[in-house]
Amino acid sequence: MRAPARRDRMTIINCDMGESFGLYRMGDDAALMPHISVANVACGFHASDFNHMRATCQLAKTHGVKVGAHPSLPDLQGFGRREMKIGRDELTNCIIYQVGALQGFLKAEGMEMSHIKPHGALYGMAARDEAVAHAVCDAAEIFGLPLMGMINSCHERIYTARGIPFIAEFYADLDYGDDGLVIITREHPELDPAAAAAVCVRAVTEGLTTTISGRDIPVRADAICVHSDTPNAAAIAAAVNDAVTPWLDAA
Amino acid sequence: MRAPARRDRMTIINCDMGESFGLYRMGDDAALMPHISVANVACGFHASDFNHMRATCQLAKTHGVKVGAHPSLPDLQGFGRREMKIGRDELTNCIIYQVGALQGFLKAEGMEMSHIKPHGALYGMAARDEAVAHAVCDAAEIFGLPLMGMINSCHERIYTARGIPFIAEFYADLDYGDDGLVIITREHPELDPAAAAAVCVRAVTEGLTTTISGRDIPVRADAICVHSDTPNAAAIAAAVNDAVTPWLDAA
Amino acid sequence: MRAPARRDRMTIINCDMGESFGLYRMGDDAALMPHISVANVACGFHASDFNHMRATCQLAKTHGVKVGAHPSLPDLQGFGRREMKIGRDELTNCIIYQVGALQGFLKAEGMEMSHIKPHGALYGMAARDEAVAHAVCDAAEIFGLPLMGMINSCHERIYTARGIPFIAEFYADLDYGDDGLVIITREHPELDPAAAAAVCVRAVTEGLTTTISGRDIPVRADAICVHSDTPNAAAIAAAVNDAVTPWLDAA
Amino acid sequence: MRAPARRDRMTIINCDMGESFGLYRMGDDAALMPHISVANVACGFHASDFNHMRATCQLAKTHGVKVGAHPSLPDLQGFGRREMKIGRDELTNCIIYQVGALQGFLKAEGMEMSHIKPHGALYGMAARDEAVAHAVCDAAEIFGLPLMGMINSCHERIYTARGIPFIAEFYADLDYGDDGLVIITREHPELDPAAAAAVCVRAVTEGLTTTISGRDIPVRADAICVHSDTPNAAAIAAAVNDAVTPWLDAA
Repeated sequence: MRAPARRDRMTIINCDMGESFGLYRMGDDAALMPHISVANVACGFHASDFNHMRATCQLAKTHGVKVGAHPSLPDLQGFGRREMKIGRDELTNCIIYQVGALQGFLKAEGMEMSHIKPHGALYGMAARDEAVAHAVCDAAEIFGLPLMGMINSCHERIYTARGIPFIAEFYADLDYGDDGLVIITREHPELDPAAAAAVCVRAVTEGLTTTISGRDIPVRADAICVHSDTPNAAAIAAAVNDAVTPWLDAA
Repeated sequence: MRAPARRDRMTIINCDMGESFGLYRMGDDAALMPHISVANVACGFHASDFNHMRATCQLAKTHGVKVGAHPSLPDLQGFGRREMKIGRDELTNCIIYQVGALQGFLKAEGMEMSHIKPHGALYGMAARDEAVAHAVCDAAEIFGLPLMGMINSCHERIYTARGIPFIAEFYADLDYGDDGLVIITREHPELDPAAAAAVCVRAVTEGLTTTISGRDIPVRADAICVHSDTPNAAAIAAAVNDAVTPWLDAA
Repeated sequence: MRAPARRDRMTIINCDMGESFGLYRMGDDAALMPHISVANVACGFHASDFNHMRATCQLAKTHGVKVGAHPSLPDLQGFGRREMKIGRDELTNCIIYQVGALQGFLKAEGMEMSHIKPHGALYGMAARDEAVAHAVCDAAEIFGLPLMGMINSCHERIYTARGIPFIAEFYADLDYGDDGLVIITREHPELDPAAAAAVCVRAVTEGLTTTISGRDIPVRADAICVHSDTPNAAAIAAAVNDAVTPWLDAA
Repeated sequence: MRAPARRDRMTIINCDMGESFGLYRMGDDAALMPHISVANVACGFHASDFNHMRATCQLAKTHGVKVGAHPSLPDLQGFGRREMKIGRDELTNCIIYQVGALQGFLKAEGMEMSHIKPHGALYGMAARDEAVAHAVCDAAEIFGLPLMGMINSCHERIYTARGIPFIAEFYADLDYGDDGLVIITREHPELDPAAAAAVCVRAVTEGLTTTISGRDIPVRADAICVHSDTPNAAAIAAAVNDAVTPWLDAA
């Protein structure tokens, strides 16, 4: 495990965390935490509850991992992956509630929140729909926090236009289409860690990735996302972390 | 309506507020706000949701009314009035979640939280059960906030022993037993506003009230609670406010 | 109040009922029941809970009113009026769960279920989207029950094509557009009962109504719907019932 | 895997099933089904949802396994293991709702419900509290179904006094106290399958088991319960099934 001191410089690998609920477990957070620098922590609307939120903040603190909020549409049964028609103001309130709740736990642990990254269907809706992206911004401005998202989408366009710091994330475990957008899938199958690491190094050092059709497209990787529900997520995170860190150290 | 400037000195009348949910309405908050100084705002676990929490904070702001958190057991169907077996740490987390969420909306409106007052079954359990009272304190300490509650109960004993500022509340619309404890009822029937006001003036000026059996007992009224679900709650709050304010001004 | 014996012949006025939840009240069911013949009873997903479902079945039984299921998307906060992306099989299961639950209460009261009428966003989605209409049929077939809905929509087209008895409803309290579709609104304002009754008599006797632009269009009124959340719903139901019954008796 | 024809005679091994929720998985139902004869299927209040209920009924049907309802207090976060104060009528309604919902899915699969077995805290409360046991009976009578439970408790006493067929269950994976009551634990650790099978054979053939203090006490095993959340549940169920079946065949 890397020492927290070193981790502080390496703010690039993020993972959706704290997605257990009640007696239900999801993701091996304890195995992943040593390999990441930022955790996007579920806030009880698509996953997690007040006990898991507290425990996840404590686990992140132990590993020197920063915590961002991972708010969702209110949809526990659908894991926040079902789109829902909901107005801009209501969405802003939905996000404020979750971010505020997570801030309570960070306060309990003496931590600060690092950013906000919408989850699942909310993430996808904010990528395509300007009103949703604005709702996300309305909430982020209240907390004065950066937003994490995708380039080539309303995330980048609206967040940037609103003057909110934008953290572009590159997906270690998903394919990209020729339109520059990541291809979101419901299931995240096992991947070869070395291959995933190589793709991430290229994204970081060359700013390029190869789409499913074989074309090279420009990408930006302020942050690299590893999904915690990929079966070998910890191995992928470790491989990506080990491969990418020397390049960041050299930068 | 009293001017906000004057209200600032009169921090004594409080009311449980913001208890609507979705399309469901409960309590006439708009009618009550002009007559109170502190609102205990529901946090989504027994009542309210992210939209009503935002709207309630805005309404309180308009009227210069301070906002405290009114956290509950997770029980929307039972309006937080069903007792539940739940451990101390879990209860603390339950309260942190709700207080944090409400702080998000206060931040959105540029307001500060004034206190925490547990709701319903959680209030009753904290009055009788030391472990529950400690769980409430554990949460209050994280936010550095005073707690509102009943004298002659674990509220007063534990909160005070923990060194947390304790706001003793007197109930304008409930009867008291000879044990000095308020008699909590599920329904809150209509009351004569003038009679309720007289009872409150006596509590404030003499520190006494008459129990249902006719005895006089000592009470303490740092705050006077008017229940918003009493049918003529606004008339009671207005009468109590008008009757008590001169005594506070003179104090 | 009409005698149950007479009501049995008059299966035409229906009303969405049983929409209270926990301590929250919605609609004056007791006032409406004497004037209707069929109640569409909420099943806990947009409104109601296991206690209100039982009480609503008992109330309907007392008044000789038939009970149909009024299933919804899982969305208590949005009162089932927010659209949600959800697959056909999942929708069918969602409806089966609710219809089954309501059948439990009907069994408790020795009653039979008369029909199914999807609620809110599910109703609207089934009107426009064939896959949703098929999901509704998949559930209705399992229970062998008729479906209530709108003409000039997928309700009529798909339900009929699937061979499921279709009960066309005419709305006493909503306007119609030139496309023959009812104009669904979030709020249902107070209406003149006599005017509503006249519109219904015309729909029943002439099969015509006048759209908001002033054109006459053909309508079909196997059932007349009165919304229980219209402020003067009971007066409207009574007026419609009194005006329409003689025509039905004569038919 | 045993043939369904043979399984029909062996109505003795039951397992709590269908406890997944949304994307969360719990228990390896597919591995357990071949070794059991009755599944107690979760109804959405402590676990499961409308999709998992459907899938669990289908899985049971495939394996010729009978389905009983496994209703719970409304407590998804606490997995129905937190006690709650709730009146008798309300509890009955709570159970009716869940049993009815599950009957909807059985109807969809052309199956009949075999029995009702309350879950978790509701099971424990019904064992100790006569009013709760009566509430369970009130629901069972509506559906005309047997109840599964513990001897030496209100289950046996009240269910029997009410004339409701009582299925006494013996726990393959839990210890017994000298009071004849099973010792309920939150976690179910891995067990030696052969040892568990031997304990069950003794319970079936001799009607005896040894308590944690080493005493022999009388037990009754109309049904043997294997918990699906024990890590090696399928191996235990298989061992118990293989060991007990010859005795049943000989009986």
